[in-house]
Formats: sequence, C-alpha cells, structure tokens
Amino acid sequence: MTTPKIIHTVSELRAAIADWRGGGARIGLVPTMGALHDGHLSLIQAIGKYADRIVVSIFVNPAQFAPHEDFDSYPRNLDGDCAKLAGTDAGIVFAPTVREMYPDGFATRLLVGGPAEGLESDHRPHFFGGVATIVSKLLIAAMPDAAMFGEKDYQQLLVIRRMVTDLALPIAIPGGAIMREADGLAMSSRNAYLSQSERAIAGQLNVVLKTAIARLKAGDAIGAVEAQARDALLKAGFANVDYVAVRDAQTLAKIDDLSKPARILAAAKVGTTRLIDNMAV
Amino acid sequence: MTTPKIIHTVSELRAAIADWRGGGARIGLVPTMGALHDGHLSLIQAIGKYADRIVVSIFVNPAQFAPHEDFDSYPRNLDGDCAKLAGTDAGIVFAPTVREMYPDGFATRLLVGGPAEGLESDHRPHFFGGVATIVSKLLIAAMPDAAMFGEKDYQQLLVIRRMVTDLALPIAIPGGAIMREADGLAMSSRNAYLSQSERAIAGQLNVVLKTAIARLKAGDAIGAVEAQARDALLKAGFANVDYVAVRDAQTLAKIDDLSKPARILAAAKVGTTRLIDNMAV
Repeated sequence: MTTPKIIHTVSELRAAIADWRGGGARIGLVPTMGALHDGHLSLIQAIGKYADRIVVSIFVNPAQFAPHEDFDSYPRNLDGDCAKLAGTDAGIVFAPTVREMYPDGFATRLLVGGPAEGLESDHRPHFFGGVATIVSKLLIAAMPDAAMFGEKDYQQLLVIRRMVTDLALPIAIPGGAIMREADGLAMSSRNAYLSQSERAIAGQLNVVLKTAIARLKAGDAIGAVEAQARDALLKAGFANVDYVAVRDAQTLAKIDDLSKPARILAAAKVGTTRLIDNMAV
Repeated sequence: MTTPKIIHTVSELRAAIADWRGGGARIGLVPTMGALHDGHLSLIQAIGKYADRIVVSIFVNPAQFAPHEDFDSYPRNLDGDCAKLAGTDAGIVFAPTVREMYPDGFATRLLVGGPAEGLESDHRPHFFGGVATIVSKLLIAAMPDAAMFGEKDYQQLLVIRRMVTDLALPIAIPGGAIMREADGLAMSSRNAYLSQSERAIAGQLNVVLKTAIARLKAGDAIGAVEAQARDALLKAGFANVDYVAVRDAQTLAKIDDLSKPARILAAAKVGTTRLIDNMAV
C-alpha cells in the first residue's frame, strides 16, 4: 500500500518510471477514465502478478466520444479517485490534461480493423480509433511490461491486443475478469447515470445473457438464441438493443456453431444510458 | 568503420540494441528501402552527431506502394547494400521480412493529417499512411535516440515529425540535406529507372526550381512562378507535372507571400519514372 504520486506530464511519467526501472522493477499500467469502482480496483490487484510497480492512468479521452455522446457529463472526480487508490498498490496516478495528450496541431490517428469491425463499431464508429490512438500514446509513454484492461469491454481488449501485436509493442495485455454487483450487473462508471427504476431494468442484462448461454448449451441455434435474447431485453424494459451476438471468442468473427470458444456480447440502452456486457459461452 | 551485423527480426534487434544501451551508447536509426546511394550514406554519416551506434534498416514497405506502382520492380540488392555499408559506421543492418513487419491478421494503420495533406497525398493517397505505419513500427522496435530522414522527401520528413510529436515518441528526427549528382539531380534509387535521354531531362528539374526561386526573390508572384515552372518542366521534356508548389516550410500550408520561411516542392514524371525534388526558397 502506497500513497500514489500524481503526475500530469509524459516527461515526468517517463522520469519516474525510469527511476523504478533503475531499481529493477517490472512496470504495470492500468489505463482508466477515472470514476473508479471495484472493477478498476480489481485490475490494479490483478496486474500485481505481472508488475512490481503500478501506474494507473486517469484520462477521459475526447477522441473516443462522438459529439452527441457523454464526454461533458462523464463523471470526473480526481480527488475521490486518488482517495480510492491510496488503499491499493498503485504508485503513480498519471492524470494528463487534454492538451498534454493532444498537443497543438495534433494530426495522427490509429485505425484498427480485424476485431474492431462490427458490434461496437456499427454503433460507435469513432470509438476504437479514439481508443487505439490514446492507448498507443499511454503505452508509448509508460512502456510498461504489462497493461491490463477489463473484459467488460471485451471487444476493446481484443482491439488493443491486435494493435499491440501489430505495432510490436513489447507489452503483455492481460484481461481482467468482469466485476459484478449483487444482481450480476457488470460494474461500470456509467451505472451512476441510472435512476432507481432504470437500475432494476439494467440488472436483467446479465440474466438474459445467462439464459441465452443455457439455451445455446441445450442446442438451440445461434440466430434463434440471439433473437430471443433481444426480445427478452426489450420485454425487460430496455429502450433499444444495439446487438446481442454470439461470436468467435478470439476474432469476434460470426460463427455457425460452438466448435471453437465463443463469446456472447450485448449492448442495449436503458433510458438514455447505454450498457454493454459479455460472457464466455 | 565496422562490418554491420545483419538482423532479420524485431526481437533480435531489441536484444542487440539493449546490449549497446547497456554500454551507455546513444542509438541512431536510418530507415531506408535499400538500393543505397550516396544520399543514404550521407544520412549515416550525419546521424553520428546524435548517436554512438547506428542501425540502418532496409525494408521495401508494400504498404506505401499502390497496386499500379513499382513495388515489384523496386531495386533490391541486400548483398550490394551491405557491401556499401561495410565502409560506414553502421553497426547493424535490420532487414526484416514482410511477414515479420506485417504478421498474420495485421490490421493497424496510422493516418496522419496536417502536413500530409495535399502535394504527394493528392497523387499517392496511400503513401503517408503506409509510411507512418512502418516508420512507427521501426521506431518502436529500435526506440533510438534519433532517426534521420532525407530532406529529398521533405513532406515525408514533416509527416514523420508530426507523427513522432503526436505519439510522444522520445526520438529526435533530424533531416539530412539532399545529395545531388553533378548536374544537380537529387539522388534517388529510382534514378536507376532512367534511360540516357530521360536522365538528361531529369537533370532539368533542379534547374527549373532554382530559376523559380530566383524569380520569387526578384518579386514575381507565387502563383505566376509556379505556373512558369510547370511550363518549363513540360518544355524540358517531362511527361507530366503533378505539382510545383511554394509552401510554408514548417506546415506546407499555402502561402501568399514570403514573410515566413518557404519551400518549393515539385513532382513530375519523365517517361514512366516519377521524380520529386524541393529546395528552401
């Protein structure tokens, strides 16, 4: 347990990490957008297997929000986040300004295909480009031995692994298991947007996915199960369903059967809040 | 003077550079597509100011050629290149395969705006994306203190600087002065494509640019000088002129006067061979 040092610039981050490396430490990075919850804290704990010293980055990245999305209202509370981190093994909080990450005249974007195609990209076409660009910058700035991302954003995890392989960044990208509330709702900073009645509906998302997996295991056809799950979400009170999809767990390609590891992924709105969840089939 | 060690994989390159770094050396990288000429050799000499140990990469990058361009016929001669490098301070030749740089399922591209817009991009829209992607990979693999690029590809030099700034890569990007033949033709691996009569025409490109600069200094309007130079190239025997443009030397933005440092840049075909050149105004 340490009180983390707060750092705002890439150059100070590099200097602090060089100090750690001088002492022979392996470095771990947990990138976040802040509004930390137990899901984030579980990633910080889990990366301890790969790293002796841990950096948590907190940056609400404008490039991964579309103009109509919730960039301005996304919860920000650096003091509260740092208080939560004081009880963890995080040694540095890297909290850069937007100007630090996107300097004057910034003009470089990363675009990832492969696992980024479809699903989230059909509904948030700007999203993975914005994620890949900022994550590449965070990885290059910290150059850790490992960076950990939650499986809650499962497609994002695969996109980041693809990008890291493609750029030959010498960094392991382990995924952290989804943390859930008592009723199974996947923890998310956006859950704070939910009213009490919306919160009750939101809790059905994981239940519907579990039912779908049971049906798949009972031999129901993939297309039929996806359609049933979509209907069940609408019936449970979700305002609309972006997708419920059973995909290859490694590539997110469409599949006809369960002969290889599969993943079920869903995105749906309750009220105006968009929730995602996924599970191994 | 050393006999360079030839390395084909990123992991071996990293190990060799880590050895050098362990001895306290500053590392320099000169990325090339091979077919080395005195222009390349001048870059290797010039980077000695920034580096104690020098890597020369040789990789004909498919991603920066369009399907109709000269990827297949581009001159390749690794043995001849290594023989030339034996007389230089290059300690490592990094010559990866296409598969090494673009592994199975490769799906990541870098796109740069800003200085990449216009000029070359109007005629080779694939070009700077391909350059930025491979150069980012080479820089991440070698992580040198400095990487040197020739001013012959002036727009490319600015694009790479933009990309390096944007990704916060801790690498200096000095430019190397253009090396020229006796008649002023900028040295280029593609000059080997020229027949004897084409070679005579090619030598007029730098003469026309020098004349244009003299006219600018005499007070002629930028637009008029660009048009005169274009006509002069066609009259000299160039098959077509992609552009002759006087631009801001830092941003490549269009300019109305010479109140800030300017650069004149041109691209034109003699026969089927496309040549580029540029000069400070």
